[in-house]
Amino acid sequence: MKFTEDVFAPHMRPITGSAIREILKLCGRPGMISFAGGNPSNSALEPDVIARLSSEVLAKYGTALLQYGATDGFAPLRESAAEFLNGSGVKCTADTLLPCTGSSQAFDLLLKAMIEPGDVILCESPTFLGAIQAMREYGARLISMPTDSEGVIVEAAEELIRAHHPKLMYVIPTFQNPTGITLSLERRKALAALASKYGVVIAEDDPYRDLRYAGTELPAIQSFDEEGWVVYMSSFSKYISPGMRLGAAVANPVMLRKMVIGKQSTDVHSPLLIQAIIDAYLREGRMPAHLARIRADYRRQLDAMLEGFAAFPAGTKHTVPEGGLFVWAELPEGADGMAVFNAAIEAGVAFVPGTHFYPEGGHENTMRLNFSMCEIPAIQEGMKRLAGVISEVCR
Amino acid sequence: MKFTEDVFAPHMRPITGSAIREILKLCGRPGMISFAGGNPSNSALEPDVIARLSSEVLAKYGTALLQYGATDGFAPLRESAAEFLNGSGVKCTADTLLPCTGSSQAFDLLLKAMIEPGDVILCESPTFLGAIQAMREYGARLISMPTDSEGVIVEAAEELIRAHHPKLMYVIPTFQNPTGITLSLERRKALAALASKYGVVIAEDDPYRDLRYAGTELPAIQSFDEEGWVVYMSSFSKYISPGMRLGAAVANPVMLRKMVIGKQSTDVHSPLLIQAIIDAYLREGRMPAHLARIRADYRRQLDAMLEGFAAFPAGTKHTVPEGGLFVWAELPEGADGMAVFNAAIEAGVAFVPGTHFYPEGGHENTMRLNFSMCEIPAIQEGMKRLAGVISEVCR
Repeated sequence: MKFTEDVFAPHMRPITGSAIREILKLCGRPGMISFAGGNPSNSALEPDVIARLSSEVLAKYGTALLQYGATDGFAPLRESAAEFLNGSGVKCTADTLLPCTGSSQAFDLLLKAMIEPGDVILCESPTFLGAIQAMREYGARLISMPTDSEGVIVEAAEELIRAHHPKLMYVIPTFQNPTGITLSLERRKALAALASKYGVVIAEDDPYRDLRYAGTELPAIQSFDEEGWVVYMSSFSKYISPGMRLGAAVANPVMLRKMVIGKQSTDVHSPLLIQAIIDAYLREGRMPAHLARIRADYRRQLDAMLEGFAAFPAGTKHTVPEGGLFVWAELPEGADGMAVFNAAIEAGVAFVPGTHFYPEGGHENTMRLNFSMCEIPAIQEGMKRLAGVISEVCR
Repeated sequence: MKFTEDVFAPHMRPITGSAIREILKLCGRPGMISFAGGNPSNSALEPDVIARLSSEVLAKYGTALLQYGATDGFAPLRESAAEFLNGSGVKCTADTLLPCTGSSQAFDLLLKAMIEPGDVILCESPTFLGAIQAMREYGARLISMPTDSEGVIVEAAEELIRAHHPKLMYVIPTFQNPTGITLSLERRKALAALASKYGVVIAEDDPYRDLRYAGTELPAIQSFDEEGWVVYMSSFSKYISPGMRLGAAVANPVMLRKMVIGKQSTDVHSPLLIQAIIDAYLREGRMPAHLARIRADYRRQLDAMLEGFAAFPAGTKHTVPEGGLFVWAELPEGADGMAVFNAAIEAGVAFVPGTHFYPEGGHENTMRLNFSMCEIPAIQEGMKRLAGVISEVCR
């Protein structure tokens, strides 16, 4: 019998993979300026430091780092990571924190614990497309929550909860991917209250929190949660290195235990060498100065991008984020985003068409622009190219 | 509203975690001789080599190792790992191999691609308890295939396929965990033919293949598969290091693509530093001499354990594996395994009661004994303690 796609679970059949990963292949063309990815700047990465720490932890722990470890994580890292998150206002201890293979895995384990095909999840729209794919892979039915410049509109979210009885609400409250928008303080409190009122788990995805370039730090939604309804997810990807794949989940003990059980059979534990390196990085006290340095760089890059919008045609709107890695732009209603994208690639500048971030599609006049991977002259040149392309296509 | 376990998916609620992990906690007691784990010997691990390779790859690849990588794996490793598996008689190329965060993840991604709650999976009984848990976490219904000293009985498997229409068959063909039994050549061919005849995917879990101490190497089931029904899973855990969490899946391109899509949202990719270290390890040509050395040690440890059975009460049966890490013992029918286990812990020797490896439970008179983690004098002493305990309890 020939192999057939009938072997796949029905909800997995239509999932064809990340659109961004296809776009990133175009970014390899010579001369291409890429606003498409979500990577840190190469100058934010420290291979020499990582190499030294790797040698040091292998000398210190020896074979213990190469044997099987505990699923619930390398004990010293659970402590140091909890302390790091406490500094950012997250309520946690070593016992309520689970190191994961990236925060992607934290979300995957939460979905694995909770979702069966047909379950409803509320999410922002637009939202992180990796999360859209993750939720669909568990057969979840996604319902979009209306948002404005302060994030999720709480009254609308409450109506949707009453109408659809979701099990889970997925929110990126700080410098949201893809819009750069930050959920206001009042709404953070209100969402925490909503979760508790209706028994809905909130997945609070917060990987950009410490990349703030303006405004005042806001407490996590999780900090207002008294009854364990918020699962907080953090990541070292944007701060230290995405390639090392280390993130963390913070959850109430019952939820965390179920996620640990899921992790036992997903990857047993995250690689100990990686956990020990990040632990050593934190314990050396490197983080504050490192974050200060990359924030200063990213702030200048963001400013350069924002300035570039001046040359865009009238009617273009864009967000003015206080941090993170992305700016979101909306061309005049009816602009043909695919035509803009194709012409932009021709002109040597790449971005991600915003439509990919909407669970329901549409919104072809939107675009996500990343500023962290380009030097300032490249940002200026790329924005000039984009302005030209858009003026041409939208004429 | 108080947080409640009602938020969990129904099939996740009864899953309470790995029994072995609880037993391993007892093994930390002073003086305890442990036959319970499945770890490599500490003397098989090479922290100095790993530290050197880590520095070398970070110097060679720089920031590229710290940025996001491709979900389908670090390209040099896909090549070197495919070449390594070719040497073991597995049909694959860089393009049909997916590096995973342990072979546990390979199986998890296969389940994610294929299984929805209620689907049937055939498995050996007893089988690897991590796999039992993984299958249950996707809501699969497990049906045990009868086995004998040559592994799965093919005619019985065929009857079960006709009766239950499974999507998947999970098999550990070489030095099986927990029994140490190896599937015969004829049955390997027959299972491959069965998969193709009925359109059942075989998950061939083969992490011990290169730990052979006697007998002749057998081709993988996958080597007889002409139509892509076998997914082959390998691991560097037993050869280089379990703590580094690196394994691989080999599958037909359509299946592999769906597993890559699952991996995009599970952990995006396995840590690049780990992939690069294992790649460098393979490219330095370290594996043949390393495997020869650990095989020589493990062979002596296995022999010491097998000799220890001479002092066991009459009526005890045990396997005589040609490789791997485990020996399986059956006490006389009706022996109270829990009483033996408790008395053994009191006497300072630990093992895993065999009942945990049966999807349906029962078989309280069985035990899994690992020999790789103890030096020969400890194996001799541990077997003596066990013989005493069993004679006492089964009297």
